[in-house]
Amino acid sequence: MEVQTAARALEAAGRSVIHMEIGEPDFRTPEPVLEAARAALVDGAIYYTSALGLPALREAIARHYAETLGVRIDAERVIVTAGSSAALLLVLALLIDRDDEVLLADPGYPCNRHFVRVLEGTPVGIPVGPDAHYQLTADLIARHWTSRTRSALIASPSNPTGTMVEPAEMQRIVREVREARGTLIVDEIYLGLSYDRERRSALALDDEMFVISSFSKYFSMTGWRLGWIVAPQRHVRHLEKLAQNLYISPSTIAQHAALACFEPRTIDIAESRRGAFRERRDYLVPALRDCGFAVPVMPGGGFFVYADASRFTDDSLAFCRDLLQSTGVACTPGVDFGKHDGHRHVRFAYTVGLERLQEGVSRLSGYVQGK
Amino acid sequence: MEVQTAARALEAAGRSVIHMEIGEPDFRTPEPVLEAARAALVDGAIYYTSALGLPALREAIARHYAETLGVRIDAERVIVTAGSSAALLLVLALLIDRDDEVLLADPGYPCNRHFVRVLEGTPVGIPVGPDAHYQLTADLIARHWTSRTRSALIASPSNPTGTMVEPAEMQRIVREVREARGTLIVDEIYLGLSYDRERRSALALDDEMFVISSFSKYFSMTGWRLGWIVAPQRHVRHLEKLAQNLYISPSTIAQHAALACFEPRTIDIAESRRGAFRERRDYLVPALRDCGFAVPVMPGGGFFVYADASRFTDDSLAFCRDLLQSTGVACTPGVDFGKHDGHRHVRFAYTVGLERLQEGVSRLSGYVQGK
Repeated sequence: MEVQTAARALEAAGRSVIHMEIGEPDFRTPEPVLEAARAALVDGAIYYTSALGLPALREAIARHYAETLGVRIDAERVIVTAGSSAALLLVLALLIDRDDEVLLADPGYPCNRHFVRVLEGTPVGIPVGPDAHYQLTADLIARHWTSRTRSALIASPSNPTGTMVEPAEMQRIVREVREARGTLIVDEIYLGLSYDRERRSALALDDEMFVISSFSKYFSMTGWRLGWIVAPQRHVRHLEKLAQNLYISPSTIAQHAALACFEPRTIDIAESRRGAFRERRDYLVPALRDCGFAVPVMPGGGFFVYADASRFTDDSLAFCRDLLQSTGVACTPGVDFGKHDGHRHVRFAYTVGLERLQEGVSRLSGYVQGK
Repeated sequence: MEVQTAARALEAAGRSVIHMEIGEPDFRTPEPVLEAARAALVDGAIYYTSALGLPALREAIARHYAETLGVRIDAERVIVTAGSSAALLLVLALLIDRDDEVLLADPGYPCNRHFVRVLEGTPVGIPVGPDAHYQLTADLIARHWTSRTRSALIASPSNPTGTMVEPAEMQRIVREVREARGTLIVDEIYLGLSYDRERRSALALDDEMFVISSFSKYFSMTGWRLGWIVAPQRHVRHLEKLAQNLYISPSTIAQHAALACFEPRTIDIAESRRGAFRERRDYLVPALRDCGFAVPVMPGGGFFVYADASRFTDDSLAFCRDLLQSTGVACTPGVDFGKHDGHRHVRFAYTVGLERLQEGVSRLSGYVQGK
C-alpha cells in the first residue's frame, strides 16, 4: 500500500511510473457484460435477490465447471457472494470458532490472516519455499496440524507467487485434511487465469471442500465485487443464513451483468486476455532472471511473479522504495505477504501491457546493475 | 423468512397475496441514478476504488448532512461501504473484542445480534416497550452497562417499530455512553424516511459516535448494496485498513450511480416517495387500530408498524401462518425481532401501494373479526 500511494504521488508530480504493483487486471469489463448491465438497468427494478444469488447465475457457474474446469457440480452448491472477500468471510465464519487454527501458506495473500483474526481464530502461517512450489503440502499440513486446527486454506494459483498445487499433491492434501477431520478451503480466484495445463478445479477431487472463486480476475470485473463459493451440499443452508445476516444479498446489477460472462463471445474475450497475460509472463520471468532475480518456480497462473531479490537486498521495503524513487518502477515488497523470507523477495505484477513491462524491465536492469 | 417463503409459494400457486412482510421499498431506482450508472458503464473502466469510496461521493454525502440533516461534517469522516451491512460489520470489528458486550433494543433488527456474535462479542438484548418508544434510553443503558460493555447500538427510526429516539433522550444517551467510556453506534438507515419533524442526525449532538446509513431506503437502492459510515476522525485510518482487508472496496458502479442521488431532481423523487410512505402510514396505523391491534406509539419513520396483537394471539408465528393461509395477507411475526414479547406482536410493512394496503386491511379485518 505504501508503495502504491508513493507511486501515485510520484505520478501526480509528473514522473513516469511503471505500475508493477497493481493487483487487478488492466483490462476493462468485457462489452457483453456491460450490455447485460445496461439491459438490467432498463426498468430500474434493482431489488435484493436471494442471499444465495440469482438461480440462473448459480446454474451458469455450475455449467462453467462442467464445460471448462473438469467437474460436474450441482447448481445448488453454488453461492454467489459480494466478491471472494465475502466468500472467504462466510466460509470462515461457518467453520471456525474462537482460537481455532487455520493453516495458511507464508507467503500468502495478506487479507486471509485478517479474516481469520477478525473472527477470533488463529491464522498459522507456514513457511513455504520453492521446493514446495510456495504452497502448503500434505506433509506440511500434517506437521503443523494440532488439536485446535480446523482448516487449511490453499490458494492455487497463489497470490503472490502465481504457483499452483499439482493435482497429485492436492489429492494427498485432501486425504490428509480429511483424516485430520478438518476442512479444506481452496481459493481458485486465479484458476481461470492459469496457463500451463488444462484448468482443473480441486472440486474434481472431493465434494467435501469449500472452493472460493471470483469474477474479478478472469472476467476483468474487479469493481463489480462478485464472487462465489462452491460448498458441500449439507452446508448450503447454513451459509445461506449467514449470508442473509451478514450481506443480505450480492449486488443485483453485478449478478445480471455476470450472466453474460458465460456467453461464448465473452469467453472469447476472456481467453484472449488469458493469452495476453501468458505472453507477458513468458516475457517477464526470463527478463527478471536476466536481471539477476531468481524465479525458481515458473508461475502457473495469475499475474504475479514472486522474485527472489537476495542478490540485491535483504530489506525488500527499502529496495522497493528506492527502486520507485530512482526509476519510477513500482513493485511490492515481499514483507507484505508474511513473515517468511519476505525481506528478500519482491512481487512484480504483470497487469500492464507488454511494452510497459519492457520499459519497466529496462529501467530495472539499469538499476540493479548499479548494485 | 418462513412466512416470506410461504407467501411466495402461495402466490406461485395462483393465490392473491398482499405482501406486508417485505423489508424493502417497492419503488424502483430513480431514473437519474440509472442514468448515472449507464454513463459509468460507457467505457467499462469498472476497477476497484479507494476502500473509503470515491472522494466525490464522500463529499456529496457530507454536503447532504449539512443541507438536509442539520449537521456539518468533514467528508474525511465519511466511509462508503457495501451496504449498511458492511458498515455495521466494520464498526463492530473496530470496536469489539471477544466477549465484549453490545447493548441492543429488543425488539430490534435481528441481523445486528448476529454481527456481534460472528465477531465473538455478546449481544445484550434489552427489553423495550411502548413507554420507551421501543428504544434504548439513557436509564436502560445505565442499568445494563457492565465492565464488559463496549457499545450501545440505537436504530432511529427502528426496524421493526418505526419509532425514533427524541433529541433530548438522545442527548442523555450520548452523555451516559460517554461517561461509561463506551461508544455509541447510531443506525440511521431509515432517517431519510422519517415523517414527523425536521430530520436531524444524531451526529449533531456529538462527534464521537459512529453513524451508519444507507442508500437502500430513502433512495430506493436496495439491490445496489451501498451504505456509509460517519466515523470519528481518529478512527478513519483504522476503518480504512479493515475495509481494505475485508471488502477491498464498495461496488464501483453503485458508487457512480449514487453520485446522482444528491441532484435536486433525484431528491424530488425521493421526497415524493417519502410523502407516499407517510400517506400509507397515516392510513395504516388507524386502520390497524380499528381492527383491534394496539399501536401505542405512532411510528416516526421507516415503513413498518409493530402492532400489538395480544387481543388475538400469544403465538405470533402461528397467527402469521394462519393469517397467510386464510387470507393471503403476509406479515412478520414479532418473534423474529427478539425474545421480548414478540409472541404477541406482528410487524406490518407498508411497502405496497395504498390500494393493496386497503385490500390487506379489509382481509385482515374480516379475519380478526372471527377471532
